[in-house]
Amino acid sequence: MNKRVSYSNLSKFVENILTKVGLDEYSVKAVTVGLCETSVRGVDSHGVRLLPHYVNSAINGRKNPNPNYKYQQNLPTIGHLDADDAFGHAAGMKAIEYCMDMADKYGTGIVSVSGSSHPGAMASMALKAARKGFIAFAFTHADSLIMSHNGVRPYFGTNPICFACPRVEKEPYCLDMATSIAPWNRVLVHRNSNTDLPEGIAYNSDGEETVNPQDASSLFPSGSHKGYGLASMVEVLCGIYSGMNFGRNIPSMYGTPIKEVRKLGQFYMVMRVDGAIPEDQFIETMQLFTDDVRNEPSKSNERIMLPGDKEILESRARHKNGVPLDDLTVELFKDLAIKYNVDLEFL
Amino acid sequence: MNKRVSYSNLSKFVENILTKVGLDEYSVKAVTVGLCETSVRGVDSHGVRLLPHYVNSAINGRKNPNPNYKYQQNLPTIGHLDADDAFGHAAGMKAIEYCMDMADKYGTGIVSVSGSSHPGAMASMALKAARKGFIAFAFTHADSLIMSHNGVRPYFGTNPICFACPRVEKEPYCLDMATSIAPWNRVLVHRNSNTDLPEGIAYNSDGEETVNPQDASSLFPSGSHKGYGLASMVEVLCGIYSGMNFGRNIPSMYGTPIKEVRKLGQFYMVMRVDGAIPEDQFIETMQLFTDDVRNEPSKSNERIMLPGDKEILESRARHKNGVPLDDLTVELFKDLAIKYNVDLEFL
Repeated sequence: MNKRVSYSNLSKFVENILTKVGLDEYSVKAVTVGLCETSVRGVDSHGVRLLPHYVNSAINGRKNPNPNYKYQQNLPTIGHLDADDAFGHAAGMKAIEYCMDMADKYGTGIVSVSGSSHPGAMASMALKAARKGFIAFAFTHADSLIMSHNGVRPYFGTNPICFACPRVEKEPYCLDMATSIAPWNRVLVHRNSNTDLPEGIAYNSDGEETVNPQDASSLFPSGSHKGYGLASMVEVLCGIYSGMNFGRNIPSMYGTPIKEVRKLGQFYMVMRVDGAIPEDQFIETMQLFTDDVRNEPSKSNERIMLPGDKEILESRARHKNGVPLDDLTVELFKDLAIKYNVDLEFL
Repeated sequence: MNKRVSYSNLSKFVENILTKVGLDEYSVKAVTVGLCETSVRGVDSHGVRLLPHYVNSAINGRKNPNPNYKYQQNLPTIGHLDADDAFGHAAGMKAIEYCMDMADKYGTGIVSVSGSSHPGAMASMALKAARKGFIAFAFTHADSLIMSHNGVRPYFGTNPICFACPRVEKEPYCLDMATSIAPWNRVLVHRNSNTDLPEGIAYNSDGEETVNPQDASSLFPSGSHKGYGLASMVEVLCGIYSGMNFGRNIPSMYGTPIKEVRKLGQFYMVMRVDGAIPEDQFIETMQLFTDDVRNEPSKSNERIMLPGDKEILESRARHKNGVPLDDLTVELFKDLAIKYNVDLEFL
């Protein structure tokens, strides 16, 4: 992490690249906000480092830069968005907009997305709704990567769970977690540095635990059978509900040809905060709750945090000091800048 | 576990006791089904062993045997049920009925419950909806019991997550998990036998890990900060959304006088299965998915399971061989049988 870019320059760079690659205006905006906001929040695994892969996906046919969405309102509060192999962020942002429209009118709104692709961090979509005053759930599935309970190989992906809701302070409460014990990115970092993994993180292809990052091929679920169970719930919501692939039939993100579409499902659920108590009371109680948790006694100098607090702190720091990029990303960004004749300015 | 009762005799016993204690007909039925079905599914911690405590709760004022429910339909798909300190199962069963009515009409239905009490296993309510062909989420919060991440004391309860949905085979898919690494009941079993706890289960009152069950006062969250994060999500849905208590303000189940009401919140969300694909296709795909997972290779003789599979197998065995009761429960049941002049027949 030896180069930094300001948030505004990073956003301009990503936006310009995606525009030159041929994404439509809506996709450019959705992917730019999704990747850059995720990076500024410190979630580097799902941030701008994905840009080169996304560019390849658009050029080679996996992701459709100009999707022809088909939206069907099958029930008053549940819609189905066929995303025509859109960028996952674009499909997700579109879906959560439909959800908010339904929730405004009926209290709740659900959109099941089919024909989608990698949507980055689910927080990007959930935060969009939470910043407008809604409670939001966001789910996606992914290719097999967590070891099945009692199994010898993975069936479910790291299938994340995301939940966000508003409070008095500007940034919403936001839980966004994979159902694996650690991100796959952790394995890659150890591969690059050729250092042993901690115990309890990864299995090799024979289904035995390994600390050798080169041998790692699947991850422990978070909390053993509980993470496995949660991953199966996400699979039902994203894969089965949408009529898409599920389990081991999902094409791998990096292991299949970049021209192949992935046919992923996503699932969004938005609800109004005033179903039981008035809106003001909900927002104020969320803040009381937030302050109460943060004031709990801690065993170190660090304050007790709620989900999303770490990202809020990191976001403040990176807005001020710039977003750090790893060496590989810096090199790939330089190549993209030259190839597409786009400015890239480091701090 | 040296005495067994047939499922039908157990149900009759529980029903008769609750009727004599003065619960109204709806409460009797809800609590009987909730406790007995949970026991027959092998989840003894949340089954009929709770009956003596429930009886005390009704006699001493914590739980209202004849609640005057107030239901407000604040939004077309979100209702608020003030349960008037009803038995948790009764409030929950009522809530999920309202949810199904809304889902029938609009696709989704949510009920936020206030003024509730311990609802037993959330699966009781979620399964009720799933058996009628709906997808259901069910949540409750509970008094502080899982250690806060980086903290020295617990803030959140073991706040469970439950999710159920139908498939071709009669019994629905059902995930029902606490967000702690292990149930508190595990600690109690070790207390009774005076044997060390496994590592990574419990903390003492100084916030240090302990294997001494007599010193244990809180539990590890499932998957470290991830279980802690999920517990906070459940707290938002149950405590904040309903306007009830939250965190350390929730009265303890056993640590506060039995005349005190607990003012717990519950949260239910039901949705139709045909929001994106036809109902038949959803049901059949759920079954394909179920069979696919169960046929995954395992590292032992046990088959790979989905959430709820263990309970389905146990239910079959207990329907055939009877429901085992622990010694303490047998003694307390005998006392209840004498006090209320109710038959109790062991196998």
